[in-house]
Parts: sequence; C-alpha cells; structure tokens
Amino acid sequence: MSLLIRNALVLRSARAAELELADVLVCEGRLEKIGAAAATDADHVIDAHGNVLLPGLIQTHVHLCQTPLLGSAGDVRLMDWLRQRTWPLEAAHDPETLYHSVRWGALKLIQSGTTAILDHATVRHTETAFQGILNSGLRAQSGKVLMDHEEHCPPDLRDSTAEALRDTLALIARYRRTDEGPLTYGLNPRFVVSCTDRLLREVGKLAGRMGLPIHTHAHEEPVSIDIVERERGKRPIPHLHDLGLLGPKTQLAHCVHLTADEIGLLADTGTHVCHCPSSNLVLGSGIAPVPELLEAGVNVSLGSDATAFNPTFSPWFEMRDAALIQAGRLGPTALTARDVLEMATLNGAKGLGMEDALGTLEVGKKADLVIVEVEPSPYADSLADGVIHSMVYDPASVRVRTSLVDGRVLMQDGEVTTLDAEEVEAKGREAMAELIRRIDAAGGNDTCQAARAGATS
Amino acid sequence: MSLLIRNALVLRSARAAELELADVLVCEGRLEKIGAAAATDADHVIDAHGNVLLPGLIQTHVHLCQTPLLGSAGDVRLMDWLRQRTWPLEAAHDPETLYHSVRWGALKLIQSGTTAILDHATVRHTETAFQGILNSGLRAQSGKVLMDHEEHCPPDLRDSTAEALRDTLALIARYRRTDEGPLTYGLNPRFVVSCTDRLLREVGKLAGRMGLPIHTHAHEEPVSIDIVERERGKRPIPHLHDLGLLGPKTQLAHCVHLTADEIGLLADTGTHVCHCPSSNLVLGSGIAPVPELLEAGVNVSLGSDATAFNPTFSPWFEMRDAALIQAGRLGPTALTARDVLEMATLNGAKGLGMEDALGTLEVGKKADLVIVEVEPSPYADSLADGVIHSMVYDPASVRVRTSLVDGRVLMQDGEVTTLDAEEVEAKGREAMAELIRRIDAAGGNDTCQAARAGATS
Repeated sequence: MSLLIRNALVLRSARAAELELADVLVCEGRLEKIGAAAATDADHVIDAHGNVLLPGLIQTHVHLCQTPLLGSAGDVRLMDWLRQRTWPLEAAHDPETLYHSVRWGALKLIQSGTTAILDHATVRHTETAFQGILNSGLRAQSGKVLMDHEEHCPPDLRDSTAEALRDTLALIARYRRTDEGPLTYGLNPRFVVSCTDRLLREVGKLAGRMGLPIHTHAHEEPVSIDIVERERGKRPIPHLHDLGLLGPKTQLAHCVHLTADEIGLLADTGTHVCHCPSSNLVLGSGIAPVPELLEAGVNVSLGSDATAFNPTFSPWFEMRDAALIQAGRLGPTALTARDVLEMATLNGAKGLGMEDALGTLEVGKKADLVIVEVEPSPYADSLADGVIHSMVYDPASVRVRTSLVDGRVLMQDGEVTTLDAEEVEAKGREAMAELIRRIDAAGGNDTCQAARAGATS
Repeated sequence: MSLLIRNALVLRSARAAELELADVLVCEGRLEKIGAAAATDADHVIDAHGNVLLPGLIQTHVHLCQTPLLGSAGDVRLMDWLRQRTWPLEAAHDPETLYHSVRWGALKLIQSGTTAILDHATVRHTETAFQGILNSGLRAQSGKVLMDHEEHCPPDLRDSTAEALRDTLALIARYRRTDEGPLTYGLNPRFVVSCTDRLLREVGKLAGRMGLPIHTHAHEEPVSIDIVERERGKRPIPHLHDLGLLGPKTQLAHCVHLTADEIGLLADTGTHVCHCPSSNLVLGSGIAPVPELLEAGVNVSLGSDATAFNPTFSPWFEMRDAALIQAGRLGPTALTARDVLEMATLNGAKGLGMEDALGTLEVGKKADLVIVEVEPSPYADSLADGVIHSMVYDPASVRVRTSLVDGRVLMQDGEVTTLDAEEVEAKGREAMAELIRRIDAAGGNDTCQAARAGATS
C-alpha cells in the first residue's frame, strides 16, 4: 500500500526554516520519500496543491469519556463542577454511553487535526473505550483509571487496590500488543489524592517491570496539593518521586503550581509535563510556568483536557491560549509561535515516548500528518514563519483538510473517513442527554470528600 | 418603513432571566413592539425561527485604519511592532488605502455581529475614514487622532497644536450632525505621551463646551506611564484628571495598570474603561483588573483593539478571553458569562453615552440588534443561561445570521447587505499589500522616541 501526496508545502517541523514544495510518498505507514516528484505509481494519490503539510498535532491530555461535558464548565467553581458534573458523569456511564462519548470525542479530535492523544480514560468499561478509539484510527495512549482511596473517591468510581491491579493486568495482557490499531497501554492513576500509596507504589513497579508509561494529574490547583501535603507529609510531585513514579516514561498533566525545586525534580528525572491552558484558565487553576519549565529542560506538550474547556478539542485554540497567556505574563517573546507549535508536535511525541517515530516529518518516521489550508501572515520574515504565526495566533485562518495516522487516511478534504460523522455526533448527543438525565435523577454526587475539598478531574 | 422579525428567541439583555419566543416590530429605526404576533402588515418580514435575537454587540475600542495589520503582532515586542508596523502603516496611508482599510474592518465587524464601535482613527484623511464607516452602516463614534508632541510622535503623524485643533473644528462642523448615518464625532487624543498638555487642555475645554466625548489610550503598559510620570510629574490618569479630561463623557482604552487610587478616581469621575483582553495579552501588557473596576462602580466595556490581535474583530472571542483570564486570575466566578455579555452590550452603550438608546432590547430604543444561531449549553439552569454560556465560552457554537443598526439591515442570513463582501475584502488585501510595500520601502519608521521607549498604539 502506497500513498502519494503531491504538491504539498511541506513544513517538516516546528523549527523548519522554510516550506518545501514537495511530493510525499507514504509506504506501509511510513514516510518513504519527501522531495520533488517522489513517485508516480502510488496506489493512491492526494493532491495537496496550495496546502501546508505538517506533522500531525499531538495532545497529551484529553478525556474522551468526558466529551458530553461540553458546555459544563465556566462560571462554576471547580468543586461544584466536580461534584455536580464530572464524577457523576463518569459514574453514570454504561458501556454504550461511554462508547458513544469516546467516538464523539475522537471525531472532534480528527476534525481538529489531532492525530495522537494521551487519553485519561475512566475507571470502568475500559475495553469499550478502547474499541471506540481503535475504530476512529487515532493514535492513542490510554488505560483504565486507577482510584482506590476510600476517603477521596466517589464510591461508584472506587476500586479496591486489588481490583485496580487485577483489571489493569488483564487489560495489559489484552491490549499491550494489538494489531487492531495504534493503541498503547498506559497506567493512569487519577492523581495522588485519589490513590493509596500502596497502589501508587505498585503502579511504579509495574511500569518499571513492563516498560509501561504513566500518566497522571499533578499540581493542578492548590487544594489537592494541600491535601496530599497534610496527609502524606509531602507535596504530590516529590511524593510521586519517592514512590518511584517520576521518570522519562511519566507524563504529568497541568503542573500549574510548582516550586523551583519541583521544576528541578521534573528536569532531573526526565518527567514530561502536559500544559492545558484553557482548562487551567476556566477552572481558575492559574497559568503554568511553561517558559520556566522549558528553560529548565523539561519537555512540555499541550492538551485541551476535556470538551468542557475546549469544546472542539481544538489544538489550534489551545496553541493560541498557550501563546497569549505567557505573553501576557512575561512578554511576547517568552514563548514564540515556533515554541508553541513544537509543544503541539515534537514535544507531544516525546511525551508519548515516540519522538523517534512522530513529531517531525522525516523519512522512516510514521506517516502521522495533517494537510491544512492556512493563510500566512504577510508580515513574517519567511513563508514558514507566516504560516506558523497564523497557525498559532489566528486559528480562524486554518482549515484542516486531510489527516493520516500510520499512513491511514482519517480525514480527506474535510470529510472524516473512519467514522460516519453524522451518526457519531447524533449518538454522542443522545448519550449526552441520557447522561444528563441520569446525573439529574441521581441528584448529583455529593459524597466525595476529594470533590468537596476541591480536588481535581 | 417597518420590519417584522418573527419567531425569535428574544434575549432582552445580558441579565434577562429567560428567552421569550416573540415577534419584534421595528418602525422608523426603533423597537416598536416586542411580543406575541406584534404585527402582520410590516413592509418587510424576517423569520428568525430557532434563532436568538439579542442587542447588537458594541466594541468601544477598535482601529479600523489598522485592519491591514492583520497577522503583524505575536512574538514581537511592543516596541518593535510599533516601530516597524503600526506607526509606519498609519503614516503610509493615503486616502485610498485608508478607505479600503476602514471598509475591510467594517465588513469584519458586521460579519462578527458588532453593530456599534468606538473607533480610534488616524491623524490624516479623517473624512475618508468617515465615508468608509458611513457606507458600512455601522454605528460609530470616531474622530481625527490628535498627536502634537514634538519628541514623542513620528514626524509623519505629527500636527502642530494649532493644526490639530483647526482640523478638529472643521471636522466637527461637518460631521457633528449628519444625516448620512449613525456617526458621532469624538475627540481622540492618542495618549498622554504623544500630546502636549496644551493640546490636552484644549481638548478638555472643547469637549466641555460642545458636549463631545473623549476617547484615548491609558495605562496600557508601564513604559508609557513612566514617561509621563518622569516628564509631567504625574501618572497619566491623574494627569488627565488635572487637565480636565476625565468624566462621564470620557472613555479610556486598556487601563491594565492601575493603583487603587486611580480606580477610585475613575469611579468618582464616572470615566468609562474599555477592556481589550487579547490585545493586552499578545503585546505582553498584562491583565486588567476588570472585576475590581466593576466592583468600584466603573463602567467597563469590551474592545478587540486591532486585527493584529483579533483578526476578525470577533466580540465572541474577546468575550471568551475576558472570561478566561479573570477566571485564571481570580477564580471562575470573578466575572460571570452574564457580566461579560453585559460588558459587550449595555456597558458598551454606556461607554458611548447611549445607554438610553442601545444595549438592551426595549420598546423605544434604537433597533440595533443581532440574530444568531447558537447551541445552548445543556448544563445551564435555564435556556437563557445556556445560550449566554455558549456565547461567552464557546464562540464556535455561535453563527451570526442577521444584524440591524437603526433598523437598517446590515447583514441578513449571513450575507452583508451594505457592502459587497468579496470586493471589500479584495480591495482590503490590495491595500494591505500596497501598505506593506510602502513600509518596507521606507525601511520602517525608527525615528519616534515614544515608540523606541515602548509607548503604545
């Protein structure tokens, strides 16, 4: 199977000096050739005339199970939002609503130009969620969410430590190596507050023994940091370190509130961070010290978190938010457009441990890419700068046309090919209505101490 | 001339408890009736079935002359952006490029659902700019920009004090009362740095004698505040007060950096503020203390400033930015969606001194309104809350269909009726290309001390 993309303006990476007018040949899911008239006898040909071809956008913190929370945040304190919406929604999921929620989210992600995600799933029905991801064709790291703390988990979302580990091992056996699609199993303790130290320690051991990645929330807002400090005598990041969970296979979402020592610890251990600017703003969590993290050598990628904060999962709006808030905080050169685009591409690949295969366009790398229409800023020094400027600062000037994962076309000329968009959206909305009915019938879920204390997602 | 809008979901104001399914009758440019089956024999009928009808969006700080600066900010320090782009662009304008720039901006504003603006024009060719505004049908307050400070103005944009006043008086005579359209003459000293005290004092007197509004930039970033403090012994806002320029007919753009005393002074004098969140972020100016200003009783409206910061002049994205940055700063309830929508409607009307005629839908008020398609958040307590939530937090869920100013249809079903969109955009882009050529040929304009010092717009 070969695919030839003709006449593309190729942006090989966020650091590329220039766009190259080139043909791109994809064979067996990999980039075989990038250059003039790369081949003429491919099985399929896509004409990208006038459009920019760049590495697929990678978001390393999303919640596909929460797609129906669209429009649920804003004007609401984190505590109330969690108590009344997030936890009850996850608890209300049955396999069918979860499947449709995941596919609905995957559809939005594909439409937005995202090709790979790090998904924080939910506690139950993990296999159903995986099927939804696999059907979409998105590249994903995902895994069952681990929550076993008696006091800090809503009962409906709590496992015993043994259950959490047993189910995880069964899922690893089934999904660690699968030919069904580009899915990687990852260990997802929700956050320190909701997990016992015993579970966290076991997660660390399991990750080490099997070479599995870990993904968790950390230091999103002060209340959850305080709970951990009070109960375990340390803030969550040093605590995770002592339990053996930091390292180059670990990626932490948020990291808004960090001491200089904690930034040093993340750098020293090679731990990755995912910045979620719109989520952090809407919920009042604050602004993460992204330039400081990058300066210290920490790899920082981007994520839109849930549709509650970024209704389309748009990586473009997340990029604009990321650029703007650091400009407002430290000045317009604190984080350049190229820095931000790199966060959304190569740094995302690093967060997934796949920088050898993703994040830039190079012969031999996987064919995960997007083709976009974009109107470049005429004020930039080069066409590449103009294109990157528009992609980061003017999302409205970008139209995603086509995307590929592993050489498979997920969207062509604006039409998603792996999912029936109309059906997926209709089923997603039905699931949303059903979940809202269930949440309202249950009168919300107000029994969780962590939620009452303001602990997060 | 009467116009009947049928079957609209009417949101009378940002504070309305509910949407009302109603017909709206417009006669002679005013709202004649809002209710069930208001009339059946109107000259024209618009069916708004399923759409929300709300007061037109009002932006009280825009620069129509700067429309071609689209894509020129971001990654650039304020100083360089001003030196290399803003001042040279304004200096490079001839009547033709200015006319096309103004019309291009007006087109974008109409398409975005804006019905009234406070425009900060430029120093020259003011009549041409006015013709561009009048042809578009937008309601506007605008006026020649006043700059006479020998040291702090680029030579090409500097008048003598006498010239500035003479031209202003001539323009007032011609445009203060005009039947051509909804244009109000306003006095626009650029900012304290670029004006002599003599000019500012004369502006204050003129405003008082003729009842004219004043609009100027103030406290956008620290450097220009420092210049004024160093040269005149006071910060700009107290200095404007001492020169007689603060009061209920004055509106100050930005006000990012304020002391508690300055907030008190704005409140005591009834001076209005226009918040420009995206501009303040992109340029690294910071985040204005909007909740603190509102709490003190200062009227705060919204503006997108220039297309450099908000390429479509979208009031919806400005609303989202305004909500998000205060949530990030002070928590999600510091500025609610209703607060923000009020800033973009009624508070804008107050900023224009027109709250008796604009900003809410009431019988007898002017028929300045927009009809939008919007998908309401299903999580809100009421349909009105859901609609307002989406309008503020999810701009992608809003499509502006129709807008009226003084009962005149500026856009119907997504088509601008007062301007030929294709021609205006083509001419705008030609003007942009021509201006970039002129700026590049002149090698930028690096002679202005104010610009070198980092003073603004």
